[in-house]
Amino acid sequence: MKPGKPAEAQTATLAEIAREAGVSAPTVSKVLNGRADVAPSTRTRVEELLRTHGYRRRRAEASRSPLIDLVFHELESAWAMEVIRGVENVAQSAGLSVVLSESAGRLTPGRSWADQVAARRPHGVVLVLSELDAGQQALLTSRSIPFVVVDPAGDPGPDVPSIGATNWQGGLAATRHLIELGHTRIGAISGPTRMMCSRARIDGYRAAMETAGLPVDSSLVLDGDFHHEAGYRLGLELLRRPDRPTAIFAGNDLQALGLYEAARELGLRIPEDLSVVGFDDLPVARWVGPPLTTVRQPLTEMAEAAARLVLELGSAQEERAATRLELATSLVVRSSTAPVRPAQ
Amino acid sequence: MKPGKPAEAQTATLAEIAREAGVSAPTVSKVLNGRADVAPSTRTRVEELLRTHGYRRRRAEASRSPLIDLVFHELESAWAMEVIRGVENVAQSAGLSVVLSESAGRLTPGRSWADQVAARRPHGVVLVLSELDAGQQALLTSRSIPFVVVDPAGDPGPDVPSIGATNWQGGLAATRHLIELGHTRIGAISGPTRMMCSRARIDGYRAAMETAGLPVDSSLVLDGDFHHEAGYRLGLELLRRPDRPTAIFAGNDLQALGLYEAARELGLRIPEDLSVVGFDDLPVARWVGPPLTTVRQPLTEMAEAAARLVLELGSAQEERAATRLELATSLVVRSSTAPVRPAQ
Repeated sequence: MKPGKPAEAQTATLAEIAREAGVSAPTVSKVLNGRADVAPSTRTRVEELLRTHGYRRRRAEASRSPLIDLVFHELESAWAMEVIRGVENVAQSAGLSVVLSESAGRLTPGRSWADQVAARRPHGVVLVLSELDAGQQALLTSRSIPFVVVDPAGDPGPDVPSIGATNWQGGLAATRHLIELGHTRIGAISGPTRMMCSRARIDGYRAAMETAGLPVDSSLVLDGDFHHEAGYRLGLELLRRPDRPTAIFAGNDLQALGLYEAARELGLRIPEDLSVVGFDDLPVARWVGPPLTTVRQPLTEMAEAAARLVLELGSAQEERAATRLELATSLVVRSSTAPVRPAQ
Repeated sequence: MKPGKPAEAQTATLAEIAREAGVSAPTVSKVLNGRADVAPSTRTRVEELLRTHGYRRRRAEASRSPLIDLVFHELESAWAMEVIRGVENVAQSAGLSVVLSESAGRLTPGRSWADQVAARRPHGVVLVLSELDAGQQALLTSRSIPFVVVDPAGDPGPDVPSIGATNWQGGLAATRHLIELGHTRIGAISGPTRMMCSRARIDGYRAAMETAGLPVDSSLVLDGDFHHEAGYRLGLELLRRPDRPTAIFAGNDLQALGLYEAARELGLRIPEDLSVVGFDDLPVARWVGPPLTTVRQPLTEMAEAAARLVLELGSAQEERAATRLELATSLVVRSSTAPVRPAQ
């Protein structure tokens, strides 16, 4: 158990917190409800006491709005749309609406966002590739607003419920497929190294290489950022080498599309001259030419699972142990991979 | 002025409506606030009277939540993501959050949706390719919740503020580009004919053909639905003809990608054997091979304009005339179009 964060009994009532802060009980209520009409210094003092005492608003007190909050790190790709659809599905069945926000390039949503959430009192919060800092986590906990993280960018910690995919197994399956096709010189473009999902995929790649007795040439493993542009730029870097790889695991589908562009620019044909595997299985993977072999990540199902979990956490009578669920990935073989050709 | 819908002075107070409905004033308030604890028959009677009297809640009475509602016909494509981003941009600047919902394949959002909106009292509603029926429109109007339609599927009517793009000019520019490349046998795959934007694009196509003195062969103009699958299926139909077109205006980018797939399947090269023009300029248009020539529709800017307009309508002191704004489309020439080759 962490110091200063007693998880057992509730140690202080709202009235006691008010007394200790030297304010009225309604003022503490206002802070809990995210109301704007409280002096910043008072708010800080009250929040600090709520945190120190591990205060949790009783569920009955917390009248909820028929909303689920969905927070993205960034609303960039078709990736996000799959997730939105999953949360919408569950919300609609439960008669709830979805509030969508973006932490706008920062990995931790801004403080004002947490205040807004406290004020609107949703049934729960689903965070996508976003992390809450300790203060924000305490803020939601003290309001009894449950939250679940989808596919965490970092290590969410053992006390944060989260839904992921089997990224490591996906990287393993992608690379084994290439090895079975006879490729031995296999490059990889990772996502951002600060994201655990990205590290897990590349570790799966390494495991496949090593268990097949193939050397991992670290100069063939480059750090990308999950965007098309990185796939293009790093793809050019890998493919311009005299000893270029015959196959590349692109880390995700958008990077695979960037890699397609790099190959086109250099006059290399996919899959004759270069095999490519992506990760995600976005709709576009089926549409590009040639259709992309990729690791399917069940994004919509993951988002559904996260939304269901957050609603369960909200309605559970007792404190539940944090859950970490990983849904299975699966290799979808299309036309961007082929047996290696004899050396030119 | 429409009968039974006086737009001038407010004809009845809340108390008068209550008296006429035979209920208390607080009950009328509950109906206005979308509360669930009102008998359905009472609700229907009160709503009917609110509509007949053209009742409008005074703005000061309507304490608003810091929310904007964004409603999609369907959350399908990357298209939706561009629009979401635009509304998010404006909402963030205004300190508001976005509630996202989907009318789930029905072109008119369900009644329960309208009740939910009335209950949460957003600053306004942005509808995308969705229409409100007269009852829902009256419901929002009586609560003084302003709404704006983006790129209306049908004819939104002169009293509905809306933001569109110059679809007709886009279809014209796309087709003129093909004509300038020497194509004369030009096919087209439209979106759903019930959508005005789709009709306007095809009318632009016809205008380009006719003003160039080219015959419009109506068997070369097929009705699609804006999805990839339709582009593929109708593409095969057009391309299998012995007198196949040398160029096709695909109606939107997703249909263009389906058409790419059909061409690949038949062994036709783009642009050597077939020129293709899309519409929208989704991010994927740059990524496919060959990069797609398309008509750029400024989706994010359109969504921003809609969100700004809805906030203006909400804060305007006076009734404003309904606004219809069309943002300009522009042709983006990439590599999927080329001069026609001499007849085979």
